[in-house]
This record gives sequence, structure tokens and C-alpha cells, in this order.
Amino acid sequence: MRIVDVIEKKRDKKELTKEEIQFWINGVVDGSIPDYQSSSLLMAIVLNGMNSKETAYLTEAMMYSGDVIDLSVIDGIKSDKHSTGGVGDKTSLALGPMCAASGLKIAKMSGRGLGHTGGTLDKMESVPGFSCYLDEEQFIKQVNDISIAIIGQTAKLVPADKILYALRDVTGTVPAVPLIASSIMSKKLASGSDTILLDVKFGDGAFMKTVDEAKVLANAMIEIGKELGRDTKAMISDMNQPLGNAIGNALEVMEAVNTLKGNGPKDFEELCLQAGEIMLMQGKKATSKEEARTLLKETIKDGSAFEKLKAMFKAQGGDVSYLEDLSKLPAASMQVTMVAKEDGYISNLQALEMGTLAMRLGAGRATKEDDIDHAVGIVLAAKKGDFVKAGDPLAVVHTNTELTEEWINDFYQAYTFTSEKIEKDPIIFAVLG
Amino acid sequence: MRIVDVIEKKRDKKELTKEEIQFWINGVVDGSIPDYQSSSLLMAIVLNGMNSKETAYLTEAMMYSGDVIDLSVIDGIKSDKHSTGGVGDKTSLALGPMCAASGLKIAKMSGRGLGHTGGTLDKMESVPGFSCYLDEEQFIKQVNDISIAIIGQTAKLVPADKILYALRDVTGTVPAVPLIASSIMSKKLASGSDTILLDVKFGDGAFMKTVDEAKVLANAMIEIGKELGRDTKAMISDMNQPLGNAIGNALEVMEAVNTLKGNGPKDFEELCLQAGEIMLMQGKKATSKEEARTLLKETIKDGSAFEKLKAMFKAQGGDVSYLEDLSKLPAASMQVTMVAKEDGYISNLQALEMGTLAMRLGAGRATKEDDIDHAVGIVLAAKKGDFVKAGDPLAVVHTNTELTEEWINDFYQAYTFTSEKIEKDPIIFAVLG
Repeated sequence: MRIVDVIEKKRDKKELTKEEIQFWINGVVDGSIPDYQSSSLLMAIVLNGMNSKETAYLTEAMMYSGDVIDLSVIDGIKSDKHSTGGVGDKTSLALGPMCAASGLKIAKMSGRGLGHTGGTLDKMESVPGFSCYLDEEQFIKQVNDISIAIIGQTAKLVPADKILYALRDVTGTVPAVPLIASSIMSKKLASGSDTILLDVKFGDGAFMKTVDEAKVLANAMIEIGKELGRDTKAMISDMNQPLGNAIGNALEVMEAVNTLKGNGPKDFEELCLQAGEIMLMQGKKATSKEEARTLLKETIKDGSAFEKLKAMFKAQGGDVSYLEDLSKLPAASMQVTMVAKEDGYISNLQALEMGTLAMRLGAGRATKEDDIDHAVGIVLAAKKGDFVKAGDPLAVVHTNTELTEEWINDFYQAYTFTSEKIEKDPIIFAVLG
Repeated sequence: MRIVDVIEKKRDKKELTKEEIQFWINGVVDGSIPDYQSSSLLMAIVLNGMNSKETAYLTEAMMYSGDVIDLSVIDGIKSDKHSTGGVGDKTSLALGPMCAASGLKIAKMSGRGLGHTGGTLDKMESVPGFSCYLDEEQFIKQVNDISIAIIGQTAKLVPADKILYALRDVTGTVPAVPLIASSIMSKKLASGSDTILLDVKFGDGAFMKTVDEAKVLANAMIEIGKELGRDTKAMISDMNQPLGNAIGNALEVMEAVNTLKGNGPKDFEELCLQAGEIMLMQGKKATSKEEARTLLKETIKDGSAFEKLKAMFKAQGGDVSYLEDLSKLPAASMQVTMVAKEDGYISNLQALEMGTLAMRLGAGRATKEDDIDHAVGIVLAAKKGDFVKAGDPLAVVHTNTELTEEWINDFYQAYTFTSEKIEKDPIIFAVLG
């Protein structure tokens, strides 16, 4: 087989076979296929597409390009949830413990943040001592012992994706549903859970800008799950404004803790409850949404979800006193209240801009090598659809540096006000699969 | 400017600016843009195309990526002719001297053969002592002195094309009209002639399979000529069967000499005359096709074209006695006559297969590194539309190795016979520009 023939086939809009896709991915990983051939094939895939069979073959080839974790020694149904990324998305920190306290086994590998989106691992590292580096044996033991672990991906998980992702980033070949779907799903499948819930976000702060685009990606991933025999569902959720109120690492840990204590923002709590309903039904812990919701709410009421969160942090070396007394968490030297300049309903509150503003404070990374400041960020005091009067607080900015005029201008640019009452959007637009 | 933005623009079907294309080609030549970015952009161009403006910008950027030869010190109109390549195409060897003897200045850079197509330089090297390596000064002096020179491209001519062509070859990005047209035209423009005649071949033995495909390529090149102010015309000629009778290096030199003596195959002579008509009119040596044809025929009748051929070989170190006594040219140890197995009209005589058969005898190169055997090849005794009886000769094979059963089978596979009389196709289907 010659890779140039595979490239020409895709260039000519023909379907690639399992063997051809396998040959490519093997060559990517062992280095026998140079980048200039992969990038040409990637562009042909971007422009000519892949059908669901080809996408499943690609996912499978990538999945087996490295270690595939075997969670079968863990009793019960192992559940995983993946978000396509957004601003203020601390879902894993609240939803994971709620599901674990409801009887599911949560064995989750998570990532770091880049650009305007935050990463769960960065947030968890706000708690001193916490480590996301567990080997496979430790990971399995922890899930067996306390039903939950959230760790970083091991270096050996889907090496093909690491190579291709770096190449796609510099060759204009990122935005293609088969490539995005196989990248996500290969990692989810390799990390071994029985059920997968995908939180596919759409809107200004998400990679997919519209509900329809998000549905196309969600359906592609559900198809992969179907082809490869893994229970996969997806929800389409709103990322036109940040999720919850807090943006920034320690601030989001606080919000997750508050949510587990019943004091979280309503939109965020609702997202966790609806996601949890799907996960409990996937994991056979409930037969209806209502039953699942009751179970999940009970874990908040009886404190068991918060206990799970603490157990997880403790098992991974974290100092749990920081979760019990949130004032111990890293705090910024200044808290600046930003107030509304006019009366009106907030008709727009751009998630992308808010994520970027938080990044500029130090909460996120512009490049992979950047350090982050766990203390800084933004806590919203009002969201889309809320009415504010001039002088009312819009948000509190937690910062270790003086805010520049430019930053402040950009902050106000992220808001649009209207005199008309605005309907609040639902947080979840659809559930698929 | 970032090349990834240029790639994304073409991926999204947008028009590239002159500056963007220049930036790319500069980066290709100075090495600052890695191959994996160029190959992704090339695939985007293959699939999303380029308009005539973009193609002209690309051609111009490639043309100026290296030396641009200034022929202005040569008096008179400098004429160039380029064939897109075929089997048995020895046109330059006969047409060049005919035009030079008619008063044009022929300053031609030519290439080597690869695969089933032969190269003019390889053919000329059948004559001992001949060298195609002249520097620019020698090249100009020779055209000034004797009106004709055919040399190899200097290493510094259009280096961008050398890099991109090598990359296109291994990344499935060869077949795109803007890329083919700019590759050819950048070299023609850089080599400095005032007028260009393109012989765009179509059919089984050509890169373009149909008349329509050939016209698209021809028009793209004429557009480039127009945008960049160079008199450019194109003829669309038949390459469904080999041109003339001889295939193989020394055999084709013999056929060219015979043609200049008035004893060439009719199809080949006709192609030379029609091409020469266009070139003499482009070069203001004739005002009508009839006048041009008379002039060209006269160069055969009075021997002046053959004298030009000899003068060129002599000026470039060749031993002219080999042209005066063709029996001195390299000859194969065996001549095998292939005879028809059935009665019938030849309805098909595949050029591609014939070129490949000659290559397998050693007349051509399978890879750039291969040596070639100047002596071997095939001389056709009958062509499309001719009637043969079983036992009549189809061709004489000149070979230095025993013909294998496989080779002989493949030879007969290249022919189709029919009992119905077949019309002979014209050699030139259209003249454009």
C-alpha cells in the first residue's frame, strides 16, 4: 500500500477502507508517513468529508494507536462524560461526585485549558497537594475504592491524536466533523468507560457556533459509539454566555462546592441535574428522568456528593481543608466590582470575550507553555435576561494586577443591553442518541 | 502574515491576493514554510481551484523565484514552443530547425523524460559529444550566432517549481489546472522568449485524457500569458496513439532527420508544419498560414532546416557525422518484427502502453535515477486506420534483451482491430489563443 494512493482516493471523493485508514494511522505513529503527506490527506478529508463508517475506522485506528485502558476489573457500570469545552464549565467537579454518590463509577480522564476555555485539571490544582498524575493501576484502584477519579491523560493514550492534532493546528485542517469526532471519541473509547455522555456546546464561546452544527458533531460521535459498540448519548447545551457565574480556577472550584451544597447558580445546577439524569439512566441506576433527578438531588441534600468530592481530592493528595473552608483557596489581591452604566435587560453576554478576559487576567493560557494564576477570574452578578439598573454590579473581577483601560473597555464590549424584556434560554437544547 | 491564514482562506474557497501567493512561494523557496503547510495548501487548491488572476499571481511568483533570462540582446523575435508531453514526440528536433531556418530565433529549454513520455534532451544525447549544459551567456551567444539552441533548464530557473513539483508528486496534488498551468508557464516565461506556442496533447498517452480537458489547460495557460503580457497560443493535438512512427531516443533522432529531409511520417510532418505556421505568424515571418507553410516546406526542400539541426548539434559539441550517416547512431543488437495475428483495420493503438513498452526495453526511466539505453525502442509499421493482414508487420522492436512473453502479450494488448474501415483522426484538433 502507498499513502499517495490513499490521498488520491480521498481527493477523488472515494470511500477509504478500514485497511487504508489503519495504514495511515500506523504510519503517523511510527513516523513512516511524513507530515506533508498526512496534511494533504487531512485537507482532502476536510473538503471531501468521511462517511460514518470511515469515521468509525479512523476512531478505532486512533484508539488502538496507544494504550487502551481495561476497566473491567472495576465492578459496575463505568460512566464517562465529556464536554467539548466552554467558559465557566466546571461540570465535572459537581456532576462527577453527584453521580458517584448515586452509585455510578466515574473513571474520567480530563484535559487542561487553552485559550478562552478552562480545563478541569487546572481547576482542581487550585487545591494544594492535588495531583492528576495517577498511573493506570492507581486510577483503577481509586475508582474501585471510592467510585471516582479524575486524572490527566497518560502520555500513551491515543498518541496518533497528539500528532495529528498538532499538525491540524498549523495546516488549516481543524474544522472537520470526522476529524473532531474521531479525536474526541478515540480518547473516550481508549479510556475504557462503558457509557459516554457528550456535552456538545454551541454558541459564541464554543467551537460549534450554532445548534445545528453542534447536532452534526453530536450525531457523528453517537454514530461512532454505535459502530464501535459503546453506549453514547449527547446533549446540546448553550455556550452563548458563560456557564454558571464563576470563571477562573479557584473561583470555579468554589462554585462547584457551593453547588454540591445546594447553593449553586441555577443554570449550572440544572445542567448538572439534566446531565446526571442521562448518566444514571445509561448506568442503570434509574429507569426514569424523575427517579434519577430525585436520586441526584438527594446526594446534595444529604451531603454525600460533597463527601465524594472531598474523598476524590483526598485520594489524589489534595488538602481537603481547602474545600471545607473555601476562604483558604488562593485569592486575588484585588476584587473590583464592575457596575452597569445603563438600565436594561442583558440581551447578550459574550462567552468567548469573557473567557478571553479571564485568560488575560492570568486564569488561562494563551500558549501551552504559559503558567496560570489559580486565584484570578470573574464572577458574574447578572446574566442574560436579568434586569440591571445603572450602578448595579455586573460582575466582580478578581485580579492580581491593575485592570487596564483596554481590559475594562473590552469587558463592557462583551455586554449588550436592551429595554425589552428578554426570555432566558434553556441551558440544554436537545438530547440525542 | 501567517501561512495558516492563507491555507484557511483557500480551504474556505476565498480568492488569494497577490501578496499572499507571493508570501507562500517566497516561504517555499527560503524554507521558512514547511512542506506540511504547502501540501495542505496544495490540496486546498486542487479541490477548491484558483481563478485566472490567482493563477497568474502564482505563475509570476514562481517565475521570479529564481533567474529570469534576459534574451533582449538577441535581435529579432525569440520563439518558444512547449509540448505537455507524449509518446514519440520528437517535434522540437524537426520544428526547431525548420523555424530557425525560416528566420525565427529559437531559444528553448527542454526537459528529460520520465515514465512513458520521452524527453528531448535524452534524444539529443544519442549523438556522441552533445551537451545540453550551456550557461546563460553561451546560450545567448549560440542563438545569436546560429538562431537556435536547445538546452537543459539551469538549476536556478524557477526553483519554486522544482520544490513544489517534488512535493505534489507524493501528496496527490498533481492534477490541478492552476498548478499544472503555472508550473509550465513559469518556466516558459522565465526562459525569456517573446512568443510561446503550447502543444497541449490529449488522449490515452497524455496527461489530459480528453479534448475538453486539454482545452481547459490550454486556456488557463493562454490566460496567464495574457495577464503577464506574453504572446501565447496553444494547439490541441492528438496523443491517443504515438506521434510519428519512432519511439526511443536514437530512433526518434533518425525520424526527425528523415523528416527534415522530406521523408518523415505524414502525421508528424503535418504537426510540425501546422505548429510552424503558428510560430512564424507569431514571429512576424509570415502573414498567413499559406505563406508560412510555403516557407517551412522550402526549408526542407533546400536542406536549410537539416543544416540548422547540424549547426545546433555541432555548436553544442555533438559529432555531426552521426546525423549525416544515421547508421552510426547507437543501434540495438536485435530487431524483432511484430506481425499482425489477424486481418483488420487498427482501431486503437494505445500511446500510453507503447510508451511504457519502450520504457521497459530501456528507452525511458521508471525513476529519475534510471539510466537509459539510447538504442532501443519501437518503430511502428502501421497506425490507427491502417489495414493490415495477418502476418503483416505492425512494428519493429529494437532491443538489447530478449523480449519476454509478458512484454509480447502487453504489446498485442495495445492494439484493437476492427473489420470496419476507420477514419483517421486529424493530428491537430484546435488552435486557441
